[in-house]
Amino acid sequence: MIDVRSFIHLLDLAGTFVFALSGAMAAVGRRLDIFGVVLLAFVAGSCGGITRDVLIGAIPPASLRDERYLLVSILAGIIVFLFHRGVDRLRTPMLLFDAGGLSLFAVAGTERAINHGLSPLMAAMLGMLTGIGGGLARDVLLAEIPQVLRSDLYALAALAAAAIVVIGHSLELSSGVSAVVGAATCFALRVMAISYHWQLPTALQPEPEPERKDSKPEP
Amino acid sequence: MIDVRSFIHLLDLAGTFVFALSGAMAAVGRRLDIFGVVLLAFVAGSCGGITRDVLIGAIPPASLRDERYLLVSILAGIIVFLFHRGVDRLRTPMLLFDAGGLSLFAVAGTERAINHGLSPLMAAMLGMLTGIGGGLARDVLLAEIPQVLRSDLYALAALAAAAIVVIGHSLELSSGVSAVVGAATCFALRVMAISYHWQLPTALQPEPEPERKDSKPEP
Amino acid sequence: MIDVRSFIHLLDLAGTFVFALSGAMAAVGRRLDIFGVVLLAFVAGSCGGITRDVLIGAIPPASLRDERYLLVSILAGIIVFLFHRGVDRLRTPMLLFDAGGLSLFAVAGTERAINHGLSPLMAAMLGMLTGIGGGLARDVLLAEIPQVLRSDLYALAALAAAAIVVIGHSLELSSGVSAVVGAATCFALRVMAISYHWQLPTALQPEPEPERKDSKPEP
Repeated sequence: MIDVRSFIHLLDLAGTFVFALSGAMAAVGRRLDIFGVVLLAFVAGSCGGITRDVLIGAIPPASLRDERYLLVSILAGIIVFLFHRGVDRLRTPMLLFDAGGLSLFAVAGTERAINHGLSPLMAAMLGMLTGIGGGLARDVLLAEIPQVLRSDLYALAALAAAAIVVIGHSLELSSGVSAVVGAATCFALRVMAISYHWQLPTALQPEPEPERKDSKPEP
Repeated sequence: MIDVRSFIHLLDLAGTFVFALSGAMAAVGRRLDIFGVVLLAFVAGSCGGITRDVLIGAIPPASLRDERYLLVSILAGIIVFLFHRGVDRLRTPMLLFDAGGLSLFAVAGTERAINHGLSPLMAAMLGMLTGIGGGLARDVLLAEIPQVLRSDLYALAALAAAAIVVIGHSLELSSGVSAVVGAATCFALRVMAISYHWQLPTALQPEPEPERKDSKPEP
Repeated sequence: MIDVRSFIHLLDLAGTFVFALSGAMAAVGRRLDIFGVVLLAFVAGSCGGITRDVLIGAIPPASLRDERYLLVSILAGIIVFLFHRGVDRLRTPMLLFDAGGLSLFAVAGTERAINHGLSPLMAAMLGMLTGIGGGLARDVLLAEIPQVLRSDLYALAALAAAAIVVIGHSLELSSGVSAVVGAATCFALRVMAISYHWQLPTALQPEPEPERKDSKPEP
């Protein structure tokens, strides 16, 4: 029989795998070679957790201590490299898996930050960072504005999960209960945001092309 | 009555607020949603200090221990989101505040690095990094070459402040005196650079479009 | 007479110098000012080692403890700023030096990670990261997809060196022997990849412009 700890670890590896797939897909899209594809897979799968661990002082980070994270990322990279058109056709299941990975990472990251003594508010922030950090690093390496900053309540869903874990903790609920509720909320939010194209508002900008001011270098 | 420590802390929060405004403005310009705007506000306000704290081993970083930094960033993000055209019209006062934030961060970052036992030269480097790190991270997330690497003596002004603090420390001056002189120098340098369009020289490049060699990917 | 330790340190500084030259050249190509050129030189020369040290908990990082790394980077930045056309003409020797720097950083980074108790697999990853990290950070700051993810077995050569060091260590060979064999392998791989235009495969993409799906922001 499988115990709770192993189950969570398994889910964590599953989340890493799905995020690694997303990193590898993005790398294939930008025509990186097989090595670049595997590296982006690792970055997307592990950078969120690594950044969190560096910030809370859990050194060396879990992804560098436990080799299974690396192996899972390499596997994801190779699968995408070989079968990326197949993976691409699996876009809908991939989005579901990605929502699952996000939920899980946000919950696990928050728990870990609480255990390291961070305040509730900051633990929630770090939980969110664990969820979105891999996607941030992936897009920064591909010289793009991170998708996680733009699309479909992505970061907000992660924050919702983290907030629920933190609130559950301060109410002294069982951590299992708040983890499940938090992850389910994040997953549901994300799936509904994708299904119904929910977007957070952007600032009103009636003037033509106002962003020029910022994006142009000084002459 | 307010004591010196609280006063410095207040100035530090003020610097965070101004930098957070700059991050939020840049995010609005790139049409990020409200959540992205707040996140960029936090990044611009806190990444310099966070990076410094990670490098000197002050874990968890001050911006993750003290929640006021986060709250100030959220406030700045919301203000810009709602009133960004008003904030945009305040460009000149914003530049002054930004110069103030830079001065303060450079001085405070240097002091902190000295207290953690870094050599004078390296403390000055970390002081400069504290000042420019938020702007670096903001522009990296927006996939732009950082403004702080290009504009108007920005990094140099921060380094000047840091150097004065370090020199004052090695001459065993009161740290209050060198902090004030350092911050004032940075502020004055930056204001004059903006007013008179002072620029550091760039390398001579008479040939047409020489940067192609570097910026093109290999075929 | 010079002992082994000093010799390695000398090689390490030489590697930093060459990488700093590459950072400064890229910065000149993007028309950064003298300060930006020196900063990019430092970033390219030191970010690989700094990231490794942060991840293994060697705080403050060697590049911030030993001022010679900074001085060497400043020197490289100034040389490139003044004589960049001359340096540009030295493209072939520069590539050789760069291959040397990569070899050395990969070997030294792996040794350092082993000494900090990381597993062989992870030590090899960190050795590779030490080699490619500076180039990654340089290109991220210039808002480009990192060359090290795209060109001529760059990261793979670093990984080969790291793997040889790790294997030598687990076979209990003298660390000097495996360091030399590892560095020589990396150097040879890189030189041959450049000479014969060796490339790792990219994924097959017969459809027209398939990367659009990923690179376009949502409307």
